[in-house]
Amino acid sequence: MILQKLSRIAFVLVLATASSSLVAQETFTIRLAETWGPNSPILGETPRNMAAMAEKMSGGRLKFRIDSSNKHKAPFGIFDLVKGGQYDMGHTASYYYKGSIPNAMYFTTVPFGMIAQEQYAWFYHGGGMELMEKVYRPHGLLSFPGGNTGNQMGGWFRDEIESVDDLDGLKMRTPGFAGEVMSELGVAVTNIPPGELYSALEKGTIDALEWVGPALDFNMGFHQIAKYYYSGWQEPGAEVQFLINKKTWDKLPAELQEILRVSMRTAAYDMYTQSTHESGVAWDRMKEDYPDVTHKTFPPEVIEALREATNKLLAEEAEKDELAREIINSQRDYLKQVRQWTNISDKAYLNSISGE
Amino acid sequence: MILQKLSRIAFVLVLATASSSLVAQETFTIRLAETWGPNSPILGETPRNMAAMAEKMSGGRLKFRIDSSNKHKAPFGIFDLVKGGQYDMGHTASYYYKGSIPNAMYFTTVPFGMIAQEQYAWFYHGGGMELMEKVYRPHGLLSFPGGNTGNQMGGWFRDEIESVDDLDGLKMRTPGFAGEVMSELGVAVTNIPPGELYSALEKGTIDALEWVGPALDFNMGFHQIAKYYYSGWQEPGAEVQFLINKKTWDKLPAELQEILRVSMRTAAYDMYTQSTHESGVAWDRMKEDYPDVTHKTFPPEVIEALREATNKLLAEEAEKDELAREIINSQRDYLKQVRQWTNISDKAYLNSISGE
Repeated sequence: MILQKLSRIAFVLVLATASSSLVAQETFTIRLAETWGPNSPILGETPRNMAAMAEKMSGGRLKFRIDSSNKHKAPFGIFDLVKGGQYDMGHTASYYYKGSIPNAMYFTTVPFGMIAQEQYAWFYHGGGMELMEKVYRPHGLLSFPGGNTGNQMGGWFRDEIESVDDLDGLKMRTPGFAGEVMSELGVAVTNIPPGELYSALEKGTIDALEWVGPALDFNMGFHQIAKYYYSGWQEPGAEVQFLINKKTWDKLPAELQEILRVSMRTAAYDMYTQSTHESGVAWDRMKEDYPDVTHKTFPPEVIEALREATNKLLAEEAEKDELAREIINSQRDYLKQVRQWTNISDKAYLNSISGE
Repeated sequence: MILQKLSRIAFVLVLATASSSLVAQETFTIRLAETWGPNSPILGETPRNMAAMAEKMSGGRLKFRIDSSNKHKAPFGIFDLVKGGQYDMGHTASYYYKGSIPNAMYFTTVPFGMIAQEQYAWFYHGGGMELMEKVYRPHGLLSFPGGNTGNQMGGWFRDEIESVDDLDGLKMRTPGFAGEVMSELGVAVTNIPPGELYSALEKGTIDALEWVGPALDFNMGFHQIAKYYYSGWQEPGAEVQFLINKKTWDKLPAELQEILRVSMRTAAYDMYTQSTHESGVAWDRMKEDYPDVTHKTFPPEVIEALREATNKLLAEEAEKDELAREIINSQRDYLKQVRQWTNISDKAYLNSISGE
């Protein structure tokens, strides 16, 4: 009633000032749960970057309350918290939910899959968003890319890996799908909480571990113990994600939905850019402070064995489930096309000036 | 006076409805001039993507009138049109204005410089934005990244280039700084309007030409004449730009400034993603329809000569002008750091799975 009266006043005002309108504006507070702990660099900065953009663009009509894992106590339960409506939004990684929603894992990254930029092209132009919607919609959720770590490193190894035989019996921390692939080659795969990783490596409980890349590895100190830092194969472009409960989304007027969509999209790209920067800074510093750290790539024989094991496991998943097959095929076909372009552009360029 | 009265009414309403506010909202129409012709793919889609986001997020308070080059008749005069206030915004490329604002050219791309992702890291975390502001602010302009073409190809050649001698006397269309570098090696550099390029190549008026990459080269048809398609060295990550007249910017309220900033930033990233996609599609189709098109990379001897000539010309520019020196040094130092990371991540990964 009050609103109705005011919109008539607004209408009169528009006529009077030509370029002004008067609108009654509802505000919304979005509760967001993140997987990460408080003050988590890069990963934790991303939902805050998103929130800052959305709050400012909406003139304060969108507000956010972001809870870290110390608050909600469920770092790997974000999917359930948002599905159940305890939170409106989440910032997490799809592949943490292999148990409850198996087909989600492909939207983070896949061993021997696309690098970040190729994967953004797949999400936004190659059918990726539509497939992600197929997976999440039945749970009453919307999902959006939430930031890329860049190409993750293969990990820190106390000893060199010169052949497939060197992997047999190796004790290594490497979770998720990559862990399953490693198991196929005889690696004794373990998962150890982050806080205990350094001492596990130091005491020899594990011989190797995979974490993220220089930007996030540096503070963990692994380079003080394990001297061989291998390039990766297992997470060529790990994309975290925003989850939104569809009921929250549907409550928002069109302009706030667009503000949220664009803020998430920009924050995701921004995280990839920040990861690139911080990785460069950290790797530079690591080499300076610890000159005995040696960068290595796995020999072709090892790469080939890892790839065969990956293909075997993906084929098994594709066999079991129709939607899994659709996603795996879409990613494989898209990669085949876009990689030809990557090869004659950035790869050819970087190789032709190999002095750097 | 009317506004003052209404904000008091608005205040009362906020108290009454708890989560609503009432705001008098001015609308703005932004006139944007683009370098590109009407319906220009990718490049022309980018300011429209920006405008669509900004209009929707602002609930119609920001509106855009975009004029293509057929309208304003000054494809390479966007800098002057926005500086002079005939337009509020422009979408163009910094390196077109080497004549009137020489230090602008470094913000598009530099031969043997950073690839797109490295360059975004430099813009947003390595001091690039601050240097760009130093260059444009004295002209009453703000400048923002406006979209990346990805790594541009070295061009279409009728004959193979096997040595530096093969460049001597070669007639080639390649504009800008890359043209100057080519001249140093004896190339007879010419510039020819886009509409006449195909027939110039066909008639032998030129032996080679450089355009963009598969996505934009395909419709030009060069692959029907010149069979050797070389990887690039001259524009490893060409970023176009948005220009805004500072007087227009200052008129906007804070939330509309943020909407404009974020829309430009997202549209820029989006263009890079679209370029990646379209390049993959076009290169795939080109190879299928024209199997005699051969991809080549310049031999190391040629790359080395091009790099030496590039360094010589950059050193001359740095010698002449203090701000040029500051920009060149910033880009060189940043590249040195970030490239080490690119080398152990994407480059090492792409090389280790070289079967693709």
